Amino acid sequence: MASAFLTRRVTFAAAHRYRRPEWSDEENERVFGLCARPNYHGHSYACDVTVQGEIDPRTGMLIDVAKLDGALALEVRDRFDHKNINLDVPEFSEGKLVPTGENLARFIFDRLRAILDGAAQVTEVTVAEDATLKCTYRGD
Amino acid sequence: MASAFLTRRVTFAAAHRYRRPEWSDEENERVFGLCARPNYHGHSYACDVTVQGEIDPRTGMLIDVAKLDGALALEVRDRFDHKNINLDVPEFSEGKLVPTGENLARFIFDRLRAILDGAAQVTEVTVAEDATLKCTYRGD
Amino acid sequence: MASAFLTRRVTFAAAHRYRRPEWSDEENERVFGLCARPNYHGHSYACDVTVQGEIDPRTGMLIDVAKLDGALALEVRDRFDHKNINLDVPEFSEGKLVPTGENLARFIFDRLRAILDGAAQVTEVTVAEDATLKCTYRGD
Amino acid sequence: MASAFLTRRVTFAAAHRYRRPEWSDEENERVFGLCARPNYHGHSYACDVTVQGEIDPRTGMLIDVAKLDGALALEVRDRFDHKNINLDVPEFSEGKLVPTGENLARFIFDRLRAILDGAAQVTEVTVAEDATLKCTYRGD
Amino acid sequence: MASAFLTRRVTFAAAHRYRRPEWSDEENERVFGLCARPNYHGHSYACDVTVQGEIDPRTGMLIDVAKLDGALALEVRDRFDHKNINLDVPEFSEGKLVPTGENLARFIFDRLRAILDGAAQVTEVTVAEDATLKCTYRGD
Amino acid sequence: MASAFLTRRVTFAAAHRYRRPEWSDEENERVFGLCARPNYHGHSYACDVTVQGEIDPRTGMLIDVAKLDGALALEVRDRFDHKNINLDVPEFSEGKLVPTGENLARFIFDRLRAILDGAAQVTEVTVAEDATLKCTYRGD
Repeated sequence: MASAFLTRRVTFAAAHRYRRPEWSDEENERVFGLCARPNYHGHSYACDVTVQGEIDPRTGMLIDVAKLDGALALEVRDRFDHKNINLDVPEFSEGKLVPTGENLARFIFDRLRAILDGAAQVTEVTVAEDATLKCTYRGD
Repeated sequence: MASAFLTRRVTFAAAHRYRRPEWSDEENERVFGLCARPNYHGHSYACDVTVQGEIDPRTGMLIDVAKLDGALALEVRDRFDHKNINLDVPEFSEGKLVPTGENLARFIFDRLRAILDGAAQVTEVTVAEDATLKCTYRGD
Repeated sequence: MASAFLTRRVTFAAAHRYRRPEWSDEENERVFGLCARPNYHGHSYACDVTVQGEIDPRTGMLIDVAKLDGALALEVRDRFDHKNINLDVPEFSEGKLVPTGENLARFIFDRLRAILDGAAQVTEVTVAEDATLKCTYRGD
Repeated sequence: MASAFLTRRVTFAAAHRYRRPEWSDEENERVFGLCARPNYHGHSYACDVTVQGEIDPRTGMLIDVAKLDGALALEVRDRFDHKNINLDVPEFSEGKLVPTGENLARFIFDRLRAILDGAAQVTEVTVAEDATLKCTYRGD
Repeated sequence: MASAFLTRRVTFAAAHRYRRPEWSDEENERVFGLCARPNYHGHSYACDVTVQGEIDPRTGMLIDVAKLDGALALEVRDRFDHKNINLDVPEFSEGKLVPTGENLARFIFDRLRAILDGAAQVTEVTVAEDATLKCTYRGD
Repeated sequence: MASAFLTRRVTFAAAHRYRRPEWSDEENERVFGLCARPNYHGHSYACDVTVQGEIDPRTGMLIDVAKLDGALALEVRDRFDHKNINLDVPEFSEGKLVPTGENLARFIFDRLRAILDGAAQVTEVTVAEDATLKCTYRGD
């Protein structure tokens, strides 16, 4: 048997802002900079999900890509695309998770781990805001 | 003398939604689809600005790129980056221009034409929301 | 009124080969090089379709993108994706059109012109085989 | 001494299909989806090969890139470019390896390990079909 | 008959600086900014060459791409790749053409026009220094 | 607590050549190929810097990106952009480090480790000359 990795990219367009409600506006701006602006801004996110598994000697595949795509549609596209992450995704509402790349990668990782349980091992989720900044979570 | 074109890319991250206030929610959703969602979504925009001019035989340049960059910082970055286009840019406030790629390209074209007057001729502005959709305005 | 251009990208994965049946194998290889190899090869094609139209002052749009996407799904994705262009698309069968980028761009242009008649003016179709080679047809 | 990694990209255009001859057409289509279509389809593949080695303190290099390029030309370009993987590469002929990204990455990894023996340690091969799907093999 | 456009990309890595020898260092720096630094800097250039022609109804092609590639190898790769444009290309030596994107696009356009005479009509050459800046010359 | 990775891209345009002064011209050319050409050539470099850290449960961030950007401006942009690496960066002057991707990645890694001490752990630096060649250093 041989183990390999498959990485699938899914994209979504979303708005967000960074804010801790228990902090003053000045403190939010000091810590979060432009990302603290109250009216939200947004990104065309690219999310790369990597799963690891044994290559099935008959199919040459480590996962049914259609099943993976179904999980990505449900857990990433439907939840985040054309949404305001702060207002539309309860786990990121005010006072809970700040919608940074770090938290998004971790959140998506945990959700996919749960839903793909048994089908393949999610090993890494990367969330990129643009070509210059990305965050990766590996479950540690 | 020889005429050439120079294209500069500037990027910005912004939130927006499409909505005509005189229409019902149903009508907005029918016409604008996901873009009508009330809580805004966002994009990592790429804006390509093309100017035309004579190549100066001494410098080999058709425009002072530093001057062009100054105009792009003022008219594109400062106005749109980390902003909500509907809420932060008066010309796109509710009831005025809908912040589509078409209207953004046209608006930026007109602003740059005005501010760059005399330095070079703006011939084309393209605004891309992501790798699959872009709008171009050429002043016609 | 103001006219603008909207460009949408659609991708497809297809196999093809170049061959004129009335020519000898040697002549096919001399003219078409590696593309004449008998067992087919393939590409991840990117097809950019540009339409021109007046910006509707109410919607800020020149075309209903959902309608355009429907036309691209029907005329490009469904016809070419995961297909062998020579064997699966009758207009490119042996003795008819050679499936070059030039012919693909022209064929897609003509099909979209017909199906989008009245909705918007197709002005340009570009078909890229990879990052180094693309062909454009503008209806002339 | 310090160890580093060098990654070289090589591209190829190839046709393939997924099929187990001992399965019915229905079973092939159920497992492989569109990739089971009988007439083949294709991709513009990008293959990234990573080698690890000590940085030579005189040259600042961990491998002679010309030697690596020679191996990639021989083992990747010559074998796969403008080919039908099922028909032209014996190891992927019907009943043997299914030409998935997983199997391609593993096959290329093993071939390069053999041919580059002594020059540098191949640590990773990634094969991408397009911008949304790639497979990686690391020799485990 | 139908006319189409084919665009081929060729890349090269080169060093350059901007300097008019009849100007003072201060004047060079004022006009050319960082590009005037005396020790040269460099870019990974991408050069897109567009040719127009009638689609041959037998071959589906408007030019023999192998012939075009030969011209690009001779006039672009061999001349500029791994070179210092100011020191290695006589037309850009001190006191002659400043090696800007504008002048490079025009120079390559004129050379290709001459060498491809009769094979196809060169209509456009674009020279990009990076993802944010490119210059286009169309022969006007 | 949860650990994640953040990767920031910074670009720079620089000239360089490969040469060991104690070797003959023939030996330099034999080992370094085109990179040994005496007049320098150049690249549009992309440098990806990865830092690892615990996600702060209040901010959702593992590092203050503004602080990271400050370090990248100081240690990468200011040192290398629009420079000749051999002539302008003392550590890469003749007889010292050859300015290969391997040495650049290692040098930048070490500098960032020193300057970011305490703020975050630099785990990886990748330096790409173009889309086909990159080197990574991980501190081993």
